[in-house]
Amino acid sequence: MMVSKDRKVVVDFEPLSRRSYILPNKNFYELLIHSGIYIRSLCGGKGSCGKCRVLFQKGLEFINPITKIELEFLSKSDIEEGWRLACQCRLNNNSIIHLEEQEPPQFRIFLPEELLFEDFKILTSGRDRGVKFKPNIKKFHLYVEKPSLKKPLSDLERVIASLNKEIGKLENHKRFETDYEVFKKIPDVIREKDHEITVTVLNNKRIIDCESGNTVDANFGIAIDIGTTTIVGYLINLNDAKTYAIASCLNPQTAFGEDVVSRITYISSNKNGLQQLNSIVIEALNDIIKKVCEKARIQASQIYEATIVGNSVMHHIFLNITPKFIGLSPYVPALQHSINVNANNLNLNMSKQGNVFVLPLIAGYVGADTIGVMLSSGIGKEDEITLALDVGTNGELVIGNKEFLATGSCAAGSALEGAHIAHGMRAAAGAIDSVKIDPKTLDVSYTTIKSKPPMGICGSGLIDSVAEMLKAKIISRSGHINKELFDQERFIRNENNLEFILANDTETSIDRPITISQKDIREIQMAKGAFFSGARLILQYLKRMYNSEASISQIFLAGAFGNYINKENAKFIGMIPDIPNEKIFQIGNAAGIGAQHALLNIDLREKAHELLKKTHYVEIAIEANFQKEFAQAMYFPHMNLDLFPSLNEYKHIPKR
Amino acid sequence: MMVSKDRKVVVDFEPLSRRSYILPNKNFYELLIHSGIYIRSLCGGKGSCGKCRVLFQKGLEFINPITKIELEFLSKSDIEEGWRLACQCRLNNNSIIHLEEQEPPQFRIFLPEELLFEDFKILTSGRDRGVKFKPNIKKFHLYVEKPSLKKPLSDLERVIASLNKEIGKLENHKRFETDYEVFKKIPDVIREKDHEITVTVLNNKRIIDCESGNTVDANFGIAIDIGTTTIVGYLINLNDAKTYAIASCLNPQTAFGEDVVSRITYISSNKNGLQQLNSIVIEALNDIIKKVCEKARIQASQIYEATIVGNSVMHHIFLNITPKFIGLSPYVPALQHSINVNANNLNLNMSKQGNVFVLPLIAGYVGADTIGVMLSSGIGKEDEITLALDVGTNGELVIGNKEFLATGSCAAGSALEGAHIAHGMRAAAGAIDSVKIDPKTLDVSYTTIKSKPPMGICGSGLIDSVAEMLKAKIISRSGHINKELFDQERFIRNENNLEFILANDTETSIDRPITISQKDIREIQMAKGAFFSGARLILQYLKRMYNSEASISQIFLAGAFGNYINKENAKFIGMIPDIPNEKIFQIGNAAGIGAQHALLNIDLREKAHELLKKTHYVEIAIEANFQKEFAQAMYFPHMNLDLFPSLNEYKHIPKR
Repeated sequence: MMVSKDRKVVVDFEPLSRRSYILPNKNFYELLIHSGIYIRSLCGGKGSCGKCRVLFQKGLEFINPITKIELEFLSKSDIEEGWRLACQCRLNNNSIIHLEEQEPPQFRIFLPEELLFEDFKILTSGRDRGVKFKPNIKKFHLYVEKPSLKKPLSDLERVIASLNKEIGKLENHKRFETDYEVFKKIPDVIREKDHEITVTVLNNKRIIDCESGNTVDANFGIAIDIGTTTIVGYLINLNDAKTYAIASCLNPQTAFGEDVVSRITYISSNKNGLQQLNSIVIEALNDIIKKVCEKARIQASQIYEATIVGNSVMHHIFLNITPKFIGLSPYVPALQHSINVNANNLNLNMSKQGNVFVLPLIAGYVGADTIGVMLSSGIGKEDEITLALDVGTNGELVIGNKEFLATGSCAAGSALEGAHIAHGMRAAAGAIDSVKIDPKTLDVSYTTIKSKPPMGICGSGLIDSVAEMLKAKIISRSGHINKELFDQERFIRNENNLEFILANDTETSIDRPITISQKDIREIQMAKGAFFSGARLILQYLKRMYNSEASISQIFLAGAFGNYINKENAKFIGMIPDIPNEKIFQIGNAAGIGAQHALLNIDLREKAHELLKKTHYVEIAIEANFQKEFAQAMYFPHMNLDLFPSLNEYKHIPKR
Repeated sequence: MMVSKDRKVVVDFEPLSRRSYILPNKNFYELLIHSGIYIRSLCGGKGSCGKCRVLFQKGLEFINPITKIELEFLSKSDIEEGWRLACQCRLNNNSIIHLEEQEPPQFRIFLPEELLFEDFKILTSGRDRGVKFKPNIKKFHLYVEKPSLKKPLSDLERVIASLNKEIGKLENHKRFETDYEVFKKIPDVIREKDHEITVTVLNNKRIIDCESGNTVDANFGIAIDIGTTTIVGYLINLNDAKTYAIASCLNPQTAFGEDVVSRITYISSNKNGLQQLNSIVIEALNDIIKKVCEKARIQASQIYEATIVGNSVMHHIFLNITPKFIGLSPYVPALQHSINVNANNLNLNMSKQGNVFVLPLIAGYVGADTIGVMLSSGIGKEDEITLALDVGTNGELVIGNKEFLATGSCAAGSALEGAHIAHGMRAAAGAIDSVKIDPKTLDVSYTTIKSKPPMGICGSGLIDSVAEMLKAKIISRSGHINKELFDQERFIRNENNLEFILANDTETSIDRPITISQKDIREIQMAKGAFFSGARLILQYLKRMYNSEASISQIFLAGAFGNYINKENAKFIGMIPDIPNEKIFQIGNAAGIGAQHALLNIDLREKAHELLKKTHYVEIAIEANFQKEFAQAMYFPHMNLDLFPSLNEYKHIPKR
């Protein structure tokens, strides 16, 4: 089996958002190990335990057929759903031909959470930046001296004496601070197992828990990413940096509004709106905590720290702070700096004395999630000027390098998640996620997630559709559908709206055709135009500030969406600048990874603060050239083709 | 009017526990002003407003008769109760004769709280030590800059910028910390009065409240003394150090046990005992807070800090920490160091973000109240070796000076508060508080509090009784009642117990005679013996530690009891060492004053910690000479009369 060197075969491991590349002559079990994803296999890849079950969500057709060993461990319905044993799967020999001729295959492999009990190395940036382990929480096992009439020191003084003996005195003769809850527990706890206790110390200076006996092993933290749509929690052992469990759920606030603006509106117009949205997100977080604790078989009271990322509105609602002024010009948040809050104040079901570290915000529409992306991608350490794009329900842009950084936001991301698109949907089973159109016959071929009959189109499918419609000249560079091509088999005309059929009613699971309409094209144009012009305006701002002539030479695509789109097509529609594919990195759920990094290394919290201070915020809509830049970027790929020199196919595509 | 120079006439002003001395040719209004007790008088002492109403609880007979002016302002029943106008009262001319001949008169004057609205200088030690004003809480009135699209700083950042402009940046470029509750309030509060706000800052570094408009004036703290029997709260304005209101109540825990040991027993033997005792003391404190707020017409949320003193058991129960191990050898508390706790954690009805500073403990039976006494008396600054004695429901001793300090406790104080004494009672209306016995006739004359018919005997009455019984040879130095004196008019014999009648059944309000029995004498012997031998043993400990030959040359008597006893008689029964009266200072409620000092000056909290570190704790009962010293100190005044060279009368009193 051979893989051509310059055309790597991508494998995305979910739900880790971890990207790897097929290794020559290695099976998928070996690839997991090589990628630092240590899974629960008893036999070590010999095919005798049947534990390394993985679900191929994409790319199954490029894998060798089911082996005899797999037949032993997998049921018929398992196989139909796409389950395989990682140690039995490798790239099919036939795939070599594909590699030479066309787009390389892509894999998306889902790792069930029970596999991930052990460890996975932290996903870092597109450039594999590591993270030093320097947690905020440490536990110490102590045999405390007993008191006597001659030396009647208080319980706490004796505990602190033992602790000082164990770890040395604090700097500047400082004394350990002690949480009020510890005062209450200490007399009974210390005597429960004959003065053998374990104390939990926050930030090398504050005793936040004490338990009888030795509980040093039970030392956990949780990194939480509160997305507008999805919430993810990563349970991490703070002794060894290993992830013991991951759980996620839809943000239940979705019921009160799909995007942040509609949630602000709900809160502004309902008396108890804030309390309501706060309660349900806290409930959801407590459910996630419950799930990860059950998986890892630990008590929630042994989670001593949480780190939180989320956009500014999610951040405010989580903290029970009204976001209503983020919705009104000049869109200011209540606070920007990172904060530490006692878990008990927030009603989070973890250690009562636990610390909740919330990453900082840059502005009303550039939140802690963006700081998370900056932190985990290491954009502030890059030599080259880099554009980091986090496309979720909202879109945020960061441009910069080790010398300067600027950021801004576009309220345009949601179209690319399917909002305002007639057949748009999230990246779920049955979503069309890639599209090809034959330029001659206009015949459409597509793939769907989990190969289910199509129900709608997700972001990557939308980008592919537009790119292919351009290449087939179904639409012009200004986004107009070419009415000359109109034929009743491929188009539908409805009240002045023209639709191009991607999938016929006979193919879909919704009893009607799935189409891309003129209106949908307009939505996508606005979204991609907002991103591209936003990036241009931020760059112009930096040029003014630093009197530099720099241009973007590297791109980080963050977020689930950014992870799955076809880079070539994203460039082709003019959503991102025209730079070589090998300089475009898909860095996964960089915001969530930022939360993990902040949990794993306390120094990165200071770093987050430095990023906040260093980063210029650009209010894109008030930049002088905003109208002009936005209008020009509405064209595919742009009014000015000189900005996309590599896109030769545009020679043949009409402007209007 | 003349007052002989070496025999000062004492005036105790209550409830301030403030001691003054009659000034020649001044009336009591002038004495109040001279003593720094500024009262609400509209006319300034001219006799035209009638506001300076005070209640003479003791000494009324030494005052000039009612004046015409007083008749205008006081009702008949007022006059009967002992109310007078301070500006109309001075020492009666006849009193001069008294002064030359016998004990000078003593005054106890009660100031109704409405008089004290304005100010009183903090009561300091017997030597009038002042306290510097350096509070922990400051409020700042700010006009915060409004945000703009060009400068979209968050609400909090703008508030901090205004604050920095107002008071300068913090040291070492530190950032203001902010309480979580402030984050929640800030967006609405800042916009309520067009960006005019008041922020409350704790310890020059933490923002704990923000309110709209200018509320700088409403800045309060409360100093609280939680006694085993009585709780007192002093509401103090933290802008001007003035006391706005005082309130007190009986400690409701009394229902669960008179002394700390019985409360520990209750907690140890009842599952919810701790919770129960904690709840009722917190309720009592909240009642006190409510009362002082009503008096001063402020909101409880504008009390930002509380300082707390109390013995170790009161301290633990207040903090909801079990005191049960204080009741078991080696009697260690859960903690010793001072602590700061959030008011909300303790369910105190003050500012939710308020700080509660609890003074440190020295040992299980030497608590924060003793630190309070040390702090306010300034014993650690004295040149002379001083004994400070705090006699309350428990008794604590401190001996030392600016070079060294040691402390210990006697579980013996309660006899002197009336416990275990057949007719013992607290110092309340109807208590016999002074006694004289004619050595020839054995006729008894006595005074009672508020001159009500006698109901029982309080501490000062007990000491007087024993001293007078010694002088009249009714008892011997070993405490035995002289049976030869037995006569049915003056004695009662009951089941091997002999009682001396102080007041006949016709005089008392209880339909039986009030007596001092052989058993009572024994209780008082044990109590006074415990104090005296305790002081001896602590002094011996210091002599061993420092190889010194020092002896006690000054005494501070603290606590309500210490404030009212006859010093001469206390020496006569051998409760305190034989030193000249002018070296014995009655310093009032020094523990409560310690709490006030800690509230008024943050540096004194560090000082309290230094006192804790500096002070040796002596476990008196395990000292080698304990048995011998205690047995010898049981004698009146002591087995060894050489220790009391000034008590010439003992020449005639038999030893047995």
